[in-house]
Amino acid sequence: MGMVGGGKDAFIGAIHRIAANMDGLIELSCGALSINPDIAVDSGKSLFLPENRIYLKYEEMITKESKLSSDRRIDFVTIVTPNFAHFAPAVMALDNGFNVVIEKPITFTIDEAKQLKKKVEETGLILCLTHTYSGYPMVKQAKAMVAGNAFGKIRKVWVEYPQGWLSKLTEREGNAQAAWRTDPKRSGKSGCMGDIGTHAAHLAEYITGLKITHLCADLNVMVEGRALDDDGNVLLKFDNGAAGVLMASQVAAGEENGISIRVYGEKGGLEWHQHEPNTLLVKWLDQPAQILRAGGNYGDRLSGFATHNCRTPGGHPEGYLEAFGNIYRNFALTLSSKLSGSEPTKEMLDFPSVEDGIRGMAFIDNVVASSKSDKKWTEHAL
Amino acid sequence: MGMVGGGKDAFIGAIHRIAANMDGLIELSCGALSINPDIAVDSGKSLFLPENRIYLKYEEMITKESKLSSDRRIDFVTIVTPNFAHFAPAVMALDNGFNVVIEKPITFTIDEAKQLKKKVEETGLILCLTHTYSGYPMVKQAKAMVAGNAFGKIRKVWVEYPQGWLSKLTEREGNAQAAWRTDPKRSGKSGCMGDIGTHAAHLAEYITGLKITHLCADLNVMVEGRALDDDGNVLLKFDNGAAGVLMASQVAAGEENGISIRVYGEKGGLEWHQHEPNTLLVKWLDQPAQILRAGGNYGDRLSGFATHNCRTPGGHPEGYLEAFGNIYRNFALTLSSKLSGSEPTKEMLDFPSVEDGIRGMAFIDNVVASSKSDKKWTEHAL
Amino acid sequence: MGMVGGGKDAFIGAIHRIAANMDGLIELSCGALSINPDIAVDSGKSLFLPENRIYLKYEEMITKESKLSSDRRIDFVTIVTPNFAHFAPAVMALDNGFNVVIEKPITFTIDEAKQLKKKVEETGLILCLTHTYSGYPMVKQAKAMVAGNAFGKIRKVWVEYPQGWLSKLTEREGNAQAAWRTDPKRSGKSGCMGDIGTHAAHLAEYITGLKITHLCADLNVMVEGRALDDDGNVLLKFDNGAAGVLMASQVAAGEENGISIRVYGEKGGLEWHQHEPNTLLVKWLDQPAQILRAGGNYGDRLSGFATHNCRTPGGHPEGYLEAFGNIYRNFALTLSSKLSGSEPTKEMLDFPSVEDGIRGMAFIDNVVASSKSDKKWTEHAL
Amino acid sequence: MGMVGGGKDAFIGAIHRIAANMDGLIELSCGALSINPDIAVDSGKSLFLPENRIYLKYEEMITKESKLSSDRRIDFVTIVTPNFAHFAPAVMALDNGFNVVIEKPITFTIDEAKQLKKKVEETGLILCLTHTYSGYPMVKQAKAMVAGNAFGKIRKVWVEYPQGWLSKLTEREGNAQAAWRTDPKRSGKSGCMGDIGTHAAHLAEYITGLKITHLCADLNVMVEGRALDDDGNVLLKFDNGAAGVLMASQVAAGEENGISIRVYGEKGGLEWHQHEPNTLLVKWLDQPAQILRAGGNYGDRLSGFATHNCRTPGGHPEGYLEAFGNIYRNFALTLSSKLSGSEPTKEMLDFPSVEDGIRGMAFIDNVVASSKSDKKWTEHAL
Repeated sequence: MGMVGGGKDAFIGAIHRIAANMDGLIELSCGALSINPDIAVDSGKSLFLPENRIYLKYEEMITKESKLSSDRRIDFVTIVTPNFAHFAPAVMALDNGFNVVIEKPITFTIDEAKQLKKKVEETGLILCLTHTYSGYPMVKQAKAMVAGNAFGKIRKVWVEYPQGWLSKLTEREGNAQAAWRTDPKRSGKSGCMGDIGTHAAHLAEYITGLKITHLCADLNVMVEGRALDDDGNVLLKFDNGAAGVLMASQVAAGEENGISIRVYGEKGGLEWHQHEPNTLLVKWLDQPAQILRAGGNYGDRLSGFATHNCRTPGGHPEGYLEAFGNIYRNFALTLSSKLSGSEPTKEMLDFPSVEDGIRGMAFIDNVVASSKSDKKWTEHAL
Repeated sequence: MGMVGGGKDAFIGAIHRIAANMDGLIELSCGALSINPDIAVDSGKSLFLPENRIYLKYEEMITKESKLSSDRRIDFVTIVTPNFAHFAPAVMALDNGFNVVIEKPITFTIDEAKQLKKKVEETGLILCLTHTYSGYPMVKQAKAMVAGNAFGKIRKVWVEYPQGWLSKLTEREGNAQAAWRTDPKRSGKSGCMGDIGTHAAHLAEYITGLKITHLCADLNVMVEGRALDDDGNVLLKFDNGAAGVLMASQVAAGEENGISIRVYGEKGGLEWHQHEPNTLLVKWLDQPAQILRAGGNYGDRLSGFATHNCRTPGGHPEGYLEAFGNIYRNFALTLSSKLSGSEPTKEMLDFPSVEDGIRGMAFIDNVVASSKSDKKWTEHAL
Repeated sequence: MGMVGGGKDAFIGAIHRIAANMDGLIELSCGALSINPDIAVDSGKSLFLPENRIYLKYEEMITKESKLSSDRRIDFVTIVTPNFAHFAPAVMALDNGFNVVIEKPITFTIDEAKQLKKKVEETGLILCLTHTYSGYPMVKQAKAMVAGNAFGKIRKVWVEYPQGWLSKLTEREGNAQAAWRTDPKRSGKSGCMGDIGTHAAHLAEYITGLKITHLCADLNVMVEGRALDDDGNVLLKFDNGAAGVLMASQVAAGEENGISIRVYGEKGGLEWHQHEPNTLLVKWLDQPAQILRAGGNYGDRLSGFATHNCRTPGGHPEGYLEAFGNIYRNFALTLSSKLSGSEPTKEMLDFPSVEDGIRGMAFIDNVVASSKSDKKWTEHAL
Repeated sequence: MGMVGGGKDAFIGAIHRIAANMDGLIELSCGALSINPDIAVDSGKSLFLPENRIYLKYEEMITKESKLSSDRRIDFVTIVTPNFAHFAPAVMALDNGFNVVIEKPITFTIDEAKQLKKKVEETGLILCLTHTYSGYPMVKQAKAMVAGNAFGKIRKVWVEYPQGWLSKLTEREGNAQAAWRTDPKRSGKSGCMGDIGTHAAHLAEYITGLKITHLCADLNVMVEGRALDDDGNVLLKFDNGAAGVLMASQVAAGEENGISIRVYGEKGGLEWHQHEPNTLLVKWLDQPAQILRAGGNYGDRLSGFATHNCRTPGGHPEGYLEAFGNIYRNFALTLSSKLSGSEPTKEMLDFPSVEDGIRGMAFIDNVVASSKSDKKWTEHAL
């Protein structure tokens, strides 16, 4: 693995490294870790990279790595830069025969995302998008139960993502994370919806297997002086007629990172909270609710998708880093199956793709358009 | 107290009686408990009413009671009939000098509600509307904290009311409660929003002290063959610029009666769930969240509104019946202060009024109108 | 109902009145509410008692009431005085033909309890002991499930009762409740174990249907200067070989009134917390845990003992006062069946009796003896 | 790192590897992964070990590795074999200049543990014992708060460790984990208390900073036919006069791995549950309880010990593997400080040592002795 971005002053790069390290399947071999050369070198050294594989620019990294022998060169490039700097290295990596892992949102614009899709198709390489929350075992269990028709037709979806960390004008107080995420030039046309609303939309579609067809958005700038939305509520319509609400906020003061979802069908419903991720609450119309637990000892009541994504027996809580690690692990297992000529299992193949990236970019475009519109419903067109 | 409706086959009448009995301040003295004479008589007997005060019609009850001497006649009439049969007995009671307690929604139409208001003003009598959830001590604590500016300016309100009991076409299966509540002729122009959405709207305005100014509603009939909405999601705008969402559903399969609210301001937020009503979770931007408990031993951190509405020390859970009882108790204390010529305290006066009833009727009208409209925002006009 | 004790300065008397009032089955008709005549009179007036039935001494009350005609005289006497003043009025009431409700612990000594039992048997009257926690519907559900062998043979019982209110020497700071409860002359030979340990022991035996046969107690005085134990841990052996622990403390600083129990058998277990009393958590060896809820819509999965003791459908939380009310209600229904010559149902008969009182007094004696002993196990002899 | 034990059929070895991998500080370089040569080789290959560093016996591994040049040879040996096979490889590793990580309980007998201590002192090398639960950030926060006197003098400690997985005679049904853990020849003189009771005792002493001085144990064999205790309750006395209870069970049917602790002092208390490890509930005598969260944004309210052991901001749940990883990480940072000649910080040095191992072995000896004794209290002598 070679990493673009993720130097010492970044947040998500370190997370990607832990996630990739965890299972002993992936090794960080090189990096272009910062556009600041000093940070790039310092970061590389502290990560024990060999000096000749600490690069100052991603172009150099991709070019040089592509010339190494196949037993030495990296298998894939991981891109953890701010949103505006995803597309170019991704294209170059694919063009040079590297598979790609990319932090979400996939690109800066939907056009870039569509171009990336074409490139992926042309090259036959694999692109993995790190929508972390779909990596949790009990999220996968939820998806499997809905797919298995445990709840009958789905009628209701409530998904929410409250954070509080932008309750003040933090971007003016030297918080680098806040600075780029609230800057239209680096983040894109939406703040809150781009950063976390896309996660919520992905989670809703991932679990239900449904597609959002229409939305009605109310985006807000709650903190005076901010350039992008920091809050938003969106009514949703799904392709089977289900109704939903998506709530995302970065000014829900006192909240941490509370992405949660509730889904109801004809016969019951489910509830999952990222803050207690090993529990899936399952509710029934005419029976007591059940507490399904990751690693639970229930025979085949837990889907293979859930068990494949656990590392420990029940009662040994796994968390965000393991969920992130599952995405890397499934990507790596798929890659390694492909390299060895065998067929990856459906559990291995279950990681977010360039298609999910395009839907995410369209979500950003469409909620922004809807929020500006006087019409109630905006079509969620790609 | 004389009761109109609430015979043996009803639900809410029994609740009103327990609530009224609880504190030894109110005595059920007479009733016109059913339009079915047999049920009226049977119900009256099983409640130990004297035979001559078991009436077959409310008109008879009001007329005869009004002729009793002041030490024998009832002080107020409680109306617990289906929605369509609230207005006439309320007017007649007021006209005959009786104060009134009335189950929500206050009337069948907003015009009736406005007429009732005029009548209340003309007679100088008291009308109490049983929006139960505002009777909980920790709801009152929440209101007091927002009013005291603990959280700064309020930015966000998420209020929800999921129930699951109408997930099937129960109204066709002999469920009397379901039958009248889903029947436009008895329930009014909305089902779910009239029955429980109004509670949620009241709770949001009660706690925040804000008024909803605009709304954008998506009402749904999720169960085929049903005549009224059984589900709805509503975007809200408040008069201080805050944004909100109101979610109500009677097809959230597996849910009981989960009215809950979250409110966020500049400095923190609060969270309250009716299923665990003695706890108010208070969150802060830069300090650990706190668990405030009804009856908690924190000196004056608990508002007088909270302590006035508790009967037990912390750790002795009080519930729905006590919240309901608080509304009756405050109404009775206000009445008794008034009768004795003293001034009721502000804690006593804190029960829902005819004004709240009008806002509730307007809410029903406006969400129904908004749901039919292509426009995003509908004004919440009275 | 006539009440002995429970004047304005008392705690538990007011609770008894609310509990008795709640269902409209019982009326407070007279009282000897305090040994302080002014308080007795004031309290009686504020409770709307007729002046001639406000007594200054219980002897006078019992004598005079016994001379009233049967349609006017009370059916039973409720005794809510401090522990040392239970026995005499109870005996006198029984001797004069009144049934008795008595606050726990039943008497000051076990000998008194045994004499009371004899008196109950001689008179054929009913004595009801208010071990409140056995009045909760989900406690009754727990008992019914164990009795129905849902969990197989019971192996483990953990019962605990943490309170924090005696963490300081409150009895010297003018707290009347603390003063008598920590005074051996008024409370008896144990403080914490007598006051709350007995509740925990009763709950454990009630739910499991087992009897404690041996115990090993470690009682402590944690606050210097206190005369009685304010804390204790007790190992338990049950008559079927199950092992247990009973933990009770009044110096668990920050705790309210957290009586809780966990029971495990061969096939699963259960968990109940008084702070969230409408939920019974049921765990299984090889299936997901289930959340049983009071009033839940599960057909006959809920025992008749649970449903008989609920007043509302699921999701309308009932609490401590309702649990207390259930004891009064079942006592009143039993009494009224008996008076009308019909047979009370087993659900009506399910309230604590003089036998439970004797076991409670023996528990106090035996834990105190065990705590002083160097031997590990002390027999729990009556 | 070189690993002894932990082949494909083992449980804890895989956990150690993930924990060690996580932070990119430690590399698995060699192993003697099983006494079964086929498993040893297979396991080594699947972990990408070079063939010449896949050893069949630990003696060979230690001998050969000790001859490698310092830049190639491993820095430490990790021992993850069953209990009876800890001592010999640990001694040999130390004798050959390798630091040691060892799974708990440290040895088979207390004598071995004492010999190991002497060896550690003689060699000046570092021994790290993986008492996992002390690696959680909020456990460290708890310890720091008690040490900082936040709660005043500690009076009460309740620690519990319920599991349910040995509710049946699983050791006879082909469960290898159950087989060795219930076998006195491989596990030692105690089953449940050795396996999980020692964790609970360590957690209690770690958080409170107190030492257990006396104990009164009731160990049980609940499943017929089992050779070692599968359940036990223990009364505790601490060196400051505090009283406690330790409950551990492997027959608490339906429980997963629920190690939890509650500690109460004069001014408040704390509560921590491994199943929700990122939350520390802090309770106060006269203020609302607080919810402290790992990674919380509270300035210096969170101890440096807590923040040093988090990898993510609040709301990104870290779990068991991260807690385990913290032990490895602190050990590795200490080692690396020492190797580089700098002084490790107190946060780095905070991992369990050979002293903790001796206390654990003494705990096993003393609870077994106490359980057989008729005397109430047994001294907890080392």
